[in-house]
Amino acid sequence: MFDPVAKLKEYIRHASVSADPAYAEGMKGARECVGGLLRGIGFNVEYVPTAGHPVIVAKRGGDASWPHVIIYGHYDVQPPDPLDLWTTPPFEPVEKNGRLHGRGTADNKGPLMAHLAGVGRLLESDPTLPLRITFVIEGEEEVGSKNFNSFLREHREKLAGADFVFLSDTGIPNANQMVITVGLRGMVCFEIELSNARMDLHSGMHGGVLLNPIQGLAELCASLHTPDGRVNIPGFYNEVIDVEPWEREELTTLGLKEKDYAEFLGIGQFYVPPGYTPFEAIRFLPTLEFNGFGGGYQGEGSKTVIPSKARVKISCRLVPNQTPDKMKAIIFQAIRERTPKGLKLKITDQHDAVPYVVVPPGRSNTPAEQSPVLARAFRATDKAVAEVWGRPALYLREGGSVGLIADLKRELNLDAIMLGLFLPEDNLHAPNESFNLAVMQKGIETVQRVLHNLARG
Amino acid sequence: MFDPVAKLKEYIRHASVSADPAYAEGMKGARECVGGLLRGIGFNVEYVPTAGHPVIVAKRGGDASWPHVIIYGHYDVQPPDPLDLWTTPPFEPVEKNGRLHGRGTADNKGPLMAHLAGVGRLLESDPTLPLRITFVIEGEEEVGSKNFNSFLREHREKLAGADFVFLSDTGIPNANQMVITVGLRGMVCFEIELSNARMDLHSGMHGGVLLNPIQGLAELCASLHTPDGRVNIPGFYNEVIDVEPWEREELTTLGLKEKDYAEFLGIGQFYVPPGYTPFEAIRFLPTLEFNGFGGGYQGEGSKTVIPSKARVKISCRLVPNQTPDKMKAIIFQAIRERTPKGLKLKITDQHDAVPYVVVPPGRSNTPAEQSPVLARAFRATDKAVAEVWGRPALYLREGGSVGLIADLKRELNLDAIMLGLFLPEDNLHAPNESFNLAVMQKGIETVQRVLHNLARG
Repeated sequence: MFDPVAKLKEYIRHASVSADPAYAEGMKGARECVGGLLRGIGFNVEYVPTAGHPVIVAKRGGDASWPHVIIYGHYDVQPPDPLDLWTTPPFEPVEKNGRLHGRGTADNKGPLMAHLAGVGRLLESDPTLPLRITFVIEGEEEVGSKNFNSFLREHREKLAGADFVFLSDTGIPNANQMVITVGLRGMVCFEIELSNARMDLHSGMHGGVLLNPIQGLAELCASLHTPDGRVNIPGFYNEVIDVEPWEREELTTLGLKEKDYAEFLGIGQFYVPPGYTPFEAIRFLPTLEFNGFGGGYQGEGSKTVIPSKARVKISCRLVPNQTPDKMKAIIFQAIRERTPKGLKLKITDQHDAVPYVVVPPGRSNTPAEQSPVLARAFRATDKAVAEVWGRPALYLREGGSVGLIADLKRELNLDAIMLGLFLPEDNLHAPNESFNLAVMQKGIETVQRVLHNLARG
Repeated sequence: MFDPVAKLKEYIRHASVSADPAYAEGMKGARECVGGLLRGIGFNVEYVPTAGHPVIVAKRGGDASWPHVIIYGHYDVQPPDPLDLWTTPPFEPVEKNGRLHGRGTADNKGPLMAHLAGVGRLLESDPTLPLRITFVIEGEEEVGSKNFNSFLREHREKLAGADFVFLSDTGIPNANQMVITVGLRGMVCFEIELSNARMDLHSGMHGGVLLNPIQGLAELCASLHTPDGRVNIPGFYNEVIDVEPWEREELTTLGLKEKDYAEFLGIGQFYVPPGYTPFEAIRFLPTLEFNGFGGGYQGEGSKTVIPSKARVKISCRLVPNQTPDKMKAIIFQAIRERTPKGLKLKITDQHDAVPYVVVPPGRSNTPAEQSPVLARAFRATDKAVAEVWGRPALYLREGGSVGLIADLKRELNLDAIMLGLFLPEDNLHAPNESFNLAVMQKGIETVQRVLHNLARG
């Protein structure tokens, strides 16, 4: 079997930024790196073209009576900027103090490597394992999986007969506690541009006669929250489901301390809507967040211009049962109504993700109907986690979005078992991303045992 | 005598951006280009070192009974960005339809060239002209003339016995109407940074627990104006002098139409405090303008981060009798008071300019005491303008800032005659800056006659 750490380093060197066409070479390299690994452990690999980056589909077939698991991952990563804040080059893997540093180490290259190595070891030790496995590894997760839906629709036959999805693209609170994620926030992303004059203007010659688009956009942005931290858009919270008591309890079991969390973030105080702890807010409430604001001169020193336009990138996290279309309708209406007179508004709709929730067997007071294989897989997971981690897994909703989980549910009616592998200190989507290699080893072991327990248990 | 258009083209090629150390070569080239020209028309030239870019001082001495004029200009230019909006390269002069295109053509290389050529022609035709002339051409006007004050203090003897300052760094409304600027707005420039978390954060994992610095900065910026366009800071307008009736009348004589101005700017409506026309507002009222706002991800597509910091560059134009120190005190206090709780504030003070006003002889109801040479120079100018432009000059305050005018007044008690030469369509400080070459020819002629009238009239 291959050396997972060495292979992960090789994989990190392929700068697979899906958002930027300049990284096409890195996308191809990452794809072929994963494809090669999968062939090496006996899978049939194909690169399925889409309107964007191809999806890697790799199959181990078998008897139709065997369980069929889809293992999901993504080979693309976030852009590395701001580059000047990295202490090591983002695409040069550096191993220190038990961690591997580099863009994508935690999201999602390291966790995917745990699945590849776990499956590799299992099949090496048990070549006749009665389990069908299909890897589906996409290249557009970081740009909203925009072609994943049509991939699912057009290549439905490739995933036919699957029982559930198994993946690691979620987190755990510390290196000793496994968390199975049972809910994800959805998302809508868009950009607002406000413009006024036909060009940038001298702020001396023309300052004082026209509304500066930065001012207009600041006023618009400032209108979108109330002072207590709630989103100030009519109807924004209408579809939010109530939190179940067992969810609040499970969260308490985590033993997280607000003080530690504030220290970790480096913030002086929390800013959370009334009635929720910070740990609840990130899981159970929707948000409206400013991801980037740009307008005018941002270089060194000063430049006395009135810019002709200003832009803001906004993303909203959604929770069950909010839907992207309905949410965009009310958000865009508020933005249109609040655009200051005289400014021209352009809204660019970027991408969406539907929120997701699965009820784990035995936890909820209102259990849902589930496929028997999914229930067996949850039990196989419970057992594997207890063996490897020495304590039971917690079942929690999480703040992030993995839109394709909802796509898989809607298109193929498949639920997901999401094994958390990254840590709060891994700096996902930020400079100096890294991954804990001891967690990767436990991940490999867990994946191997989950699949063994399911097929042989 | 040299060919002023050919020389201006050569001068434009020296990319003399004072704000950015990367342009050091262009600064040196521009300085030596001007120095060479001045030597060519008989001046003694020296480059006087300062803590920043050197000042060019060039002298034509003479009898102490002769009038002594200081001709001011600056050899530095604004940064050229945003580069992608230029239709010709900023530092490649392109002549088309009677205009020369390039960064600095209008601000201030073309107008300075008119003075150089006007003086050159005059001395060629009248080598014994009884007039002392000192050129003072600085290299830091576009970064607030930050070392000009200490230059004046340390080299007072170089300007000893001067009677007034003559310059062209102001505008005219069209190519047929000379305007002598008798007032300039002052300025304070500063940058505000708000920060929260110690790094950029994943908006899924942490969205909803902390105040986003972009949101905080948007709220702060939004608080700085009232809906009717006034600056919303206590005491902001306290020191503003009343507009004199003759100023309003002179402005009416200009015959400007609001409709044309709105069309020129490309705006749907004006945004002017009540009680002022747009033409009055830019001359007689102070402003608070956002020159640049930056935070988070601004590249292609989306990136779901919560940025750790956001910055805004602000400049305020001041009018008599506002003073930078007093204004900064009240502005910074408002900013400190309005910084949302939990965010860290950093204010970077950039540069200042004191506002200026001179009362032209015979215009005001409350004439000020003036040097006899200044009064003669105003009359010499009136005569020259009537000869070259075929109609009287108008005396107007202007919206821009030339901070050294106030410095010269304070340090050496010198007033200024500001001959306007650039046009509204010249795109100062913006992409596609250009200069009308017919106006430059009239400028050369006017400069020549003003100095002739003063010395020989």
